[in-house]
Amino acid sequence: MEDKVIVLDFWSSSWAMRVKDALAEKGIAFESQEQNLIDKSPLLLEMNPVHKMIPVLIHNGKPICESINIVQYIDEVWNGKSPLLPSDPYQRSQARFWADYVDKKIYGNAKKLWKEKGEKQEEVKMEFIEGLKTLEGELGEKPYFGGEGFGFVDVVFVPVTSWFYSLEICAKFSIEAECPKITAWIKRCMEKESVSSSLADPHKVYDFVLLLKQKMGIE
Amino acid sequence: MEDKVIVLDFWSSSWAMRVKDALAEKGIAFESQEQNLIDKSPLLLEMNPVHKMIPVLIHNGKPICESINIVQYIDEVWNGKSPLLPSDPYQRSQARFWADYVDKKIYGNAKKLWKEKGEKQEEVKMEFIEGLKTLEGELGEKPYFGGEGFGFVDVVFVPVTSWFYSLEICAKFSIEAECPKITAWIKRCMEKESVSSSLADPHKVYDFVLLLKQKMGIE
Repeated sequence: MEDKVIVLDFWSSSWAMRVKDALAEKGIAFESQEQNLIDKSPLLLEMNPVHKMIPVLIHNGKPICESINIVQYIDEVWNGKSPLLPSDPYQRSQARFWADYVDKKIYGNAKKLWKEKGEKQEEVKMEFIEGLKTLEGELGEKPYFGGEGFGFVDVVFVPVTSWFYSLEICAKFSIEAECPKITAWIKRCMEKESVSSSLADPHKVYDFVLLLKQKMGIE
Repeated sequence: MEDKVIVLDFWSSSWAMRVKDALAEKGIAFESQEQNLIDKSPLLLEMNPVHKMIPVLIHNGKPICESINIVQYIDEVWNGKSPLLPSDPYQRSQARFWADYVDKKIYGNAKKLWKEKGEKQEEVKMEFIEGLKTLEGELGEKPYFGGEGFGFVDVVFVPVTSWFYSLEICAKFSIEAECPKITAWIKRCMEKESVSSSLADPHKVYDFVLLLKQKMGIE
């Protein structure tokens, strides 16, 4: 039986991009079903009744939710090609640790950074930069977080960088000036077809941010 | 070489109890090193420089941080006895999903529930009960979240129940009245020596909560 793989998707979601990138790494064909996040479809509500959020991976009719969880599932099911997590348990624990760190400190703060203003924005910006610098220390001189090869932490981290252009304009700072090694890593990742084809265009994301700000009444 | 296993611990931490319970399930001897969380030891700062928090598992000198991550590590390293995660990738993804849910909705809200007051407390209480009811639905008629056997979600969830007595008094509600199946599941878990020996005494936890409230100036 051929695998039927569907992603309940939203184009600008960096969480959804994780799933699309992981599938692309493995060379798995899938159908993206763009979702209306205001008026949620019966399919989304049925497939993710607990959180009612995208992304959802539907593999042969069975749903898997929560993006990091989905990436692990993809890595376990299609383990023959481009393994993402290392095979050694200690190395796996370190990769999971950093994926969780990226989720909390980078995604968590990126979500707030473009919306906040004034002092609160400065506070979030400081935390966000501190998180990036910690990750830069972990990257060190390696080409990827996974070492010589693109791995689990890379898949989990790289999608949010499609929002960096918007964050820099909204919060008035330069990620390249703060974190040159992270900036070089982003460029290296984007040279991979699997990554560049999975990530949204930063300028389209910025247009979307402007639209959201307008709708939310944020100057 | 015999394994040297140390837990950087704090007796009332339900996150640390996850680690102790997982080790007990596997029958692994370990040394608990109680930490001062006000004046942190050089060892804790060296072993968890990023979060500076307990629990840390130190296995033959190498640190693993973040409790759910540690439980997965323990399950992968000592996989011969009492497997916690199922072997099927889809079942594994479901277990990881619910472990994450427990972390966010139950641990996250339990941490706030005893501290808050008035309307804010009512709000957190409603969310906490909603989380428990969702988990009760997932448990269904099974003896454990892991099915016939005690598994990953059970290890991740059960430690926080040592705080339930305190939460019930502080927030004035009855978990048994709200969630009889969860209450029966707690009793079932506590019949296991591995669980009862790993969890703190609820009355000791309550004395500790009273002390914390006094220190924080909360009535």
